[in-house]
Amino acid sequence: MRATYRALCAHGYADLTMQDIADETDKSKAALHYHYDSKRDLLHAFLDFLYEEFTARVSEPAGETPAARLEALVDDVLQPPEQDAGARVAFRTALLELKAQGPYDEGVRERLERFDEFLREEVRSLIAAGIDDGTFGDVDPDDTAQFIVTALDGASTKQVAVGQDIDCARRMLHAYIETHLVAGEGESDDRPAPTEAAE
Amino acid sequence: MRATYRALCAHGYADLTMQDIADETDKSKAALHYHYDSKRDLLHAFLDFLYEEFTARVSEPAGETPAARLEALVDDVLQPPEQDAGARVAFRTALLELKAQGPYDEGVRERLERFDEFLREEVRSLIAAGIDDGTFGDVDPDDTAQFIVTALDGASTKQVAVGQDIDCARRMLHAYIETHLVAGEGESDDRPAPTEAAE
Repeated sequence: MRATYRALCAHGYADLTMQDIADETDKSKAALHYHYDSKRDLLHAFLDFLYEEFTARVSEPAGETPAARLEALVDDVLQPPEQDAGARVAFRTALLELKAQGPYDEGVRERLERFDEFLREEVRSLIAAGIDDGTFGDVDPDDTAQFIVTALDGASTKQVAVGQDIDCARRMLHAYIETHLVAGEGESDDRPAPTEAAE
Repeated sequence: MRATYRALCAHGYADLTMQDIADETDKSKAALHYHYDSKRDLLHAFLDFLYEEFTARVSEPAGETPAARLEALVDDVLQPPEQDAGARVAFRTALLELKAQGPYDEGVRERLERFDEFLREEVRSLIAAGIDDGTFGDVDPDDTAQFIVTALDGASTKQVAVGQDIDCARRMLHAYIETHLVAGEGESDDRPAPTEAAE
């Protein structure tokens, strides 16, 4: 799996061969084929591996409040701490190529949906916790979670496509959490009071 | 250019050949090569063509107010009216593959940056107009424009990767405009009044 990661960073998805992956290990291409029938099978297994790693990494975001935990989750998703910036961009590029396989490859699509559902549920439960403890206003947890996950996806795409700085997306998402979700903490001074207030 | 569009929808980017494009025209592959040295040159020209088409299509969003025009712009970007849903997904898929070429191909990257800058400036100027006429609160036009454009990109990626319904993204962006930007129109009842109000 680590060899697949390195080969994807070095070659991208479209040009990747089983030989490229074998070259990153001390195994032969034949040995790889013993475990995986095709590049496609291996990439499905790789997506499963990434899912386990991703869910373990972002599962318990640090913070005292739902807002702090939600911001930590955004940070964890946007900037995996163990990677340098070059490897991160190379890997996000390979992931974007994989995402473009969604319509063609049911196995890729199902796995991408698992990532999506997991992350939406993490965000949704933090929003629900913030509504419960009164630190968030009465927003719709499902819609808001989907919006945040969609913005995270956009930030990742823009980093690859036009080199947009990921720190800017992080800052904007923090601002969104602080101004759109957080109820009456004085961070909402970028807009006048609404004429109708909830509760 | 129309032949390139049809060939991209049918074959995707990675597997596309000059022959595939020639097959969509009444010209030979040799005739195509007379105008374009490579598939890469042709795709650069195609991105220029798309840019002209895109800017013409989304330039004058309908609406009486900056909020209505901004919502119309979001609709125009997410749902080009002239295409059916199948062609739209096929084309967005090809575009996502092209976006993944950004790090490898300077010509693609420069052209994607032009799209990005154009759309950010359209959104930014509508936000600035709304602040000027008092219908929007005192948000940061640059950051907010970048956030909206990033969310639009995410919606497009998610439509390809996991088949997320584009209508949901449109609804969320309308809600964002109405609750985050619009000042005191009574549409902000999903959150309590902030303790400090601007102005």
